[in-house]
Amino acid sequence: MEYTLMTHIRRLVIDVLKPHEPSTLEFAQQVSEAESVAGVNASVIELDREVQNVKFTIEGESIDYDTVEAIIEDAGGSVHSVDQIACGEYIVEDAPTPQD
Amino acid sequence: MEYTLMTHIRRLVIDVLKPHEPSTLEFAQQVSEAESVAGVNASVIELDREVQNVKFTIEGESIDYDTVEAIIEDAGGSVHSVDQIACGEYIVEDAPTPQD
Amino acid sequence: MEYTLMTHIRRLVIDVLKPHEPSTLEFAQQVSEAESVAGVNASVIELDREVQNVKFTIEGESIDYDTVEAIIEDAGGSVHSVDQIACGEYIVEDAPTPQD
Amino acid sequence: MEYTLMTHIRRLVIDVLKPHEPSTLEFAQQVSEAESVAGVNASVIELDREVQNVKFTIEGESIDYDTVEAIIEDAGGSVHSVDQIACGEYIVEDAPTPQD
Amino acid sequence: MEYTLMTHIRRLVIDVLKPHEPSTLEFAQQVSEAESVAGVNASVIELDREVQNVKFTIEGESIDYDTVEAIIEDAGGSVHSVDQIACGEYIVEDAPTPQD
Amino acid sequence: MEYTLMTHIRRLVIDVLKPHEPSTLEFAQQVSEAESVAGVNASVIELDREVQNVKFTIEGESIDYDTVEAIIEDAGGSVHSVDQIACGEYIVEDAPTPQD
Amino acid sequence: MEYTLMTHIRRLVIDVLKPHEPSTLEFAQQVSEAESVAGVNASVIELDREVQNVKFTIEGESIDYDTVEAIIEDAGGSVHSVDQIACGEYIVEDAPTPQD
Repeated sequence: MEYTLMTHIRRLVIDVLKPHEPSTLEFAQQVSEAESVAGVNASVIELDREVQNVKFTIEGESIDYDTVEAIIEDAGGSVHSVDQIACGEYIVEDAPTPQD
Repeated sequence: MEYTLMTHIRRLVIDVLKPHEPSTLEFAQQVSEAESVAGVNASVIELDREVQNVKFTIEGESIDYDTVEAIIEDAGGSVHSVDQIACGEYIVEDAPTPQD
Repeated sequence: MEYTLMTHIRRLVIDVLKPHEPSTLEFAQQVSEAESVAGVNASVIELDREVQNVKFTIEGESIDYDTVEAIIEDAGGSVHSVDQIACGEYIVEDAPTPQD
Repeated sequence: MEYTLMTHIRRLVIDVLKPHEPSTLEFAQQVSEAESVAGVNASVIELDREVQNVKFTIEGESIDYDTVEAIIEDAGGSVHSVDQIACGEYIVEDAPTPQD
Repeated sequence: MEYTLMTHIRRLVIDVLKPHEPSTLEFAQQVSEAESVAGVNASVIELDREVQNVKFTIEGESIDYDTVEAIIEDAGGSVHSVDQIACGEYIVEDAPTPQD
Repeated sequence: MEYTLMTHIRRLVIDVLKPHEPSTLEFAQQVSEAESVAGVNASVIELDREVQNVKFTIEGESIDYDTVEAIIEDAGGSVHSVDQIACGEYIVEDAPTPQD
Repeated sequence: MEYTLMTHIRRLVIDVLKPHEPSTLEFAQQVSEAESVAGVNASVIELDREVQNVKFTIEGESIDYDTVEAIIEDAGGSVHSVDQIACGEYIVEDAPTPQD
């Protein structure tokens, strides 16, 4: 089954593992430099002696995931997990349910 | 008793069980490709060695549930449960009550 | 004492007990088909082997409770409790108090 | 000391004790039928074998408390406590303080 | 040191101790009758056998504290504590800080 | 290193220690009388036999801290700590982070 | 790999360690004096005998991190950690996820 995906990724929340250098500031700036990215929020979750866990919330009209991942890997980090994706005509928020 | 259902499904919250491949990103994009779907939020709830639990919040003017389910199953996943449905002329939110 | 009730029910929150079939999706759609209903939110609260507990938040300009109940019973469910009612000229929200 | 009270009661939160019949739905409708009442929210707090505790949030431009109480008593219930009153030119909300 | 206070009290939160009679409803109405008071929210905090603790949130363009206190005392209550005051050109809210 | 500070203090949150007299009401009014102050919220945090802890949230276009402190000290209180400052072209709120 | 970073830093949340003097007020004012800074919120997190932990939330159209850090160090403090960065065309907020 083949899809030609026409949908737009509008928000990505990813958990990035990175060494202390380059800094989170540089990572965030480099990701936000990608043409498909409108803005980035990078929040440090945990600091280890060797590595840092940083949560990136990335927004754009049509985010190109592969470019985002390549920027992170070129800078020495890795995408540990993709935690949330919003795609389509607008950003759909995660709806709270009584089971949450 | 037979109904010809004319009502519109405007939001669906479903719990999807899926293998690690294809990725949640691809699942979300494929679901949002459905003609009846305006947007999708896919949030990872739990990661196992074999499977992932992903909560999908799907919005649209008139969502076709069967198509959504077929896309998920074609991609190798399954709808584990339907947790919330909003249908009618607009999205009615779950109203908090003192008993919640 | 006799009242000719002229007031409009604008929101109903009811706890419905239903078998697994027909699905919550069908229940929600059937309820939202009622002429007096503008929209329905159906959120699954609990799943048992035999039955499901589903919280329905129903909105409309002038909801006819008897029709709603008849639809649920025709579909094989029952209204376990009526948890919240808003009636009058607009929807009054439950006001928080220091004693809650 | 005598006051001719000119102020308007704009919101009343009362805790009502009632038997199972008439239903909360009927109580809420009857209260909202009062000329001075614009809208009613009735939320069930507790269910006993004999009685129910229902929290009523009542709004209006100038609520007549005595009429509200009479309706409740005529229907077989009683006002167990008055938990919140807002009166004056507009509805003043309970302001949170660090001591709450 | 003498000040001619020109500032306007715009919100007062006071804790009032009162007997069961007159009712909280009457207290709230009497306070809101004061010329300098635009609106009152009276929320019952605690009920004892002899006395009640009622939290009053009082708003106005320029509240006259002495009048408010006199009304409460004339009605048989007492101001147990003044918990919050907002004064000046507009109502400043209590700003949350990480130390709260 | 010398700065000629041109920036505007727009919000100050201070913790004030004061005797019971003059009252918190008088303190709040006196602080809000300062020319550079637009409004004051004074919330009582703790009451001792001898002293009171009052949290002041002070807003203005360009608050003069020294005047505020002088008013508090003239009235018999002391600034126990400065807990939050917002300065610049507008009030920046404390941004929540995952580490909070 | 070289980037010419064109992106704009719009919010910085940093944890600053500083001696008691100069005061947090002076620190906040000096940071907000930087040309690239529109506003600063400085909230005290912890007070030690020797040092203070202050959380700075800094906003601007295009914040120059190096200037901010230099101001803090010139004043005798140090940036203990950079906790959040928002950069791009607008401030992206940290998106809540079910895993938080």
